[in-house]
Amino acid sequence: MISVPATSANMGPGFDTLGVALNLRNMVRIKRSRFFSISIKGEGANNFKLKGNNLFVSIFNEHYRTLVDKSEKFRFSFYNHIPLSRGLGSSSAVIVSAISAAYAMAGVPLSKERLLNLALHYEHHPDNITPAVMGGFNVAVVENGRVYSLQKKMPKSLKAVVVIPNKPISTSHSRTRLPKKYPLSDVVFNLSRSSLLSAAIFEERWDLLKIASKDKLHQDIRMQAMPELFEVQRVALNNGALMSTLSGSGSTFFNMVHADDAKRLADLLKKRFTKFHIKIVDFDNEGVIVDESR
Amino acid sequence: MISVPATSANMGPGFDTLGVALNLRNMVRIKRSRFFSISIKGEGANNFKLKGNNLFVSIFNEHYRTLVDKSEKFRFSFYNHIPLSRGLGSSSAVIVSAISAAYAMAGVPLSKERLLNLALHYEHHPDNITPAVMGGFNVAVVENGRVYSLQKKMPKSLKAVVVIPNKPISTSHSRTRLPKKYPLSDVVFNLSRSSLLSAAIFEERWDLLKIASKDKLHQDIRMQAMPELFEVQRVALNNGALMSTLSGSGSTFFNMVHADDAKRLADLLKKRFTKFHIKIVDFDNEGVIVDESR
Repeated sequence: MISVPATSANMGPGFDTLGVALNLRNMVRIKRSRFFSISIKGEGANNFKLKGNNLFVSIFNEHYRTLVDKSEKFRFSFYNHIPLSRGLGSSSAVIVSAISAAYAMAGVPLSKERLLNLALHYEHHPDNITPAVMGGFNVAVVENGRVYSLQKKMPKSLKAVVVIPNKPISTSHSRTRLPKKYPLSDVVFNLSRSSLLSAAIFEERWDLLKIASKDKLHQDIRMQAMPELFEVQRVALNNGALMSTLSGSGSTFFNMVHADDAKRLADLLKKRFTKFHIKIVDFDNEGVIVDESR
Repeated sequence: MISVPATSANMGPGFDTLGVALNLRNMVRIKRSRFFSISIKGEGANNFKLKGNNLFVSIFNEHYRTLVDKSEKFRFSFYNHIPLSRGLGSSSAVIVSAISAAYAMAGVPLSKERLLNLALHYEHHPDNITPAVMGGFNVAVVENGRVYSLQKKMPKSLKAVVVIPNKPISTSHSRTRLPKKYPLSDVVFNLSRSSLLSAAIFEERWDLLKIASKDKLHQDIRMQAMPELFEVQRVALNNGALMSTLSGSGSTFFNMVHADDAKRLADLLKKRFTKFHIKIVDFDNEGVIVDESR
């Protein structure tokens, strides 16, 4: 069994750089079989496209064939908890778990560093794949096709309250709406906050997150496609959220809270945003897990 | 006696955000006197403009007058080690020490946080004033006219090798040469590296500094005004420098090294760049010091 966490990327100012893993996992069990087959439970179960042209299976096959020189058939059983196309890293989870699974089924050892660099071939920004592989909070840089990153394990005393809207904001649409160029003042705004946010998380200075998590590059532009998100953010920051940021390119909103404040904030958000799905989630510090005994 | 350290800002990608204090200090002794007088020893001793229109004295007077409701005269004795207009934070040192001195002479207590926010009125970017006040390595954000920062004390096992050219690059000239706007790819390049550089210094992962200290916003443009600096950087990075960055807007180059490598690198740079002044300097972890006993 391979299990991989959801991830929340950008975290406000840290565009294509910062991300954190959430204990909301996709699992897959793979058995050798006489016939190829796929079963999907949970998120995506009703999506027939996923069975016909499955990204996991194609990445898995691509790697498995380079590792093992024979043709084999598998039964893939997916148990998905990560919502699709909601900015919670479902694609990164597929990429990371498919590569891990191919190596595991081929019996070839694979370090997390190597896995991360293989995953970068499929997703060129490291902000979701790094926490999906490593777990915890991660700062990541890409240089010459390699990821350089630092991980901080998140303490049990913090939780995430995620607000998952009933519909997506498309990543591609959302990325093309961004300005082509940014004035230096906005660059410094984000660069300084992303740097302080990273240092504050490593130093556990949660009091600095509210200031350090502000963004001028992408969030507001993307949130305009779903204006209720401005209200989600306002309510969260006024009711215990240490930080409240668009998760990836949305539509999910990510809130970090002291564990004691999680239920109160979640209940309030549930009452106010009845169409959105609100979840209290632990942070994950493991990243992808390959358990060959199960 | 007030003593304040030199500072090296930007540190590559951390434009207007990152800075570190160096144990290269300006000192000033102030005595009540029947006549106003200034004496300057060390850097700036031969600069008569500094005696006529002295920034330290005008900032000192501005604050002293708001604290003490009487007219007084002082004798100011400066002992300066920070080179002027070389990107080593001499202006920030003047601002920080002048405000500190006014409060000390008035007998009014002044916290470092308050000092930092007062200094921000004179220099609107926090990258030099924050380490000048706090000492150590600092990540700083300005929000609504206030500085929010985190400090990391630098270990004794590291030293700075600074390369001080025989002439300045003017800050204002240098800033106006920068592009008005930057493409998102360059923004992410710097934002990701500044974030990783901050985390790497807090975590003492010196192996990551070389990758994390690269810049695409300002260094190369500024270095074109003094092309030998490209060679300084190349030689430094090939001979033990953990990172090698333009100090502030130049003309000084800042190199961080393991203490054991400092002499070898300094000797090599001295041989290659005979017109430049090369200094091995300890990092400073104290920031501005007010010692009323001396």
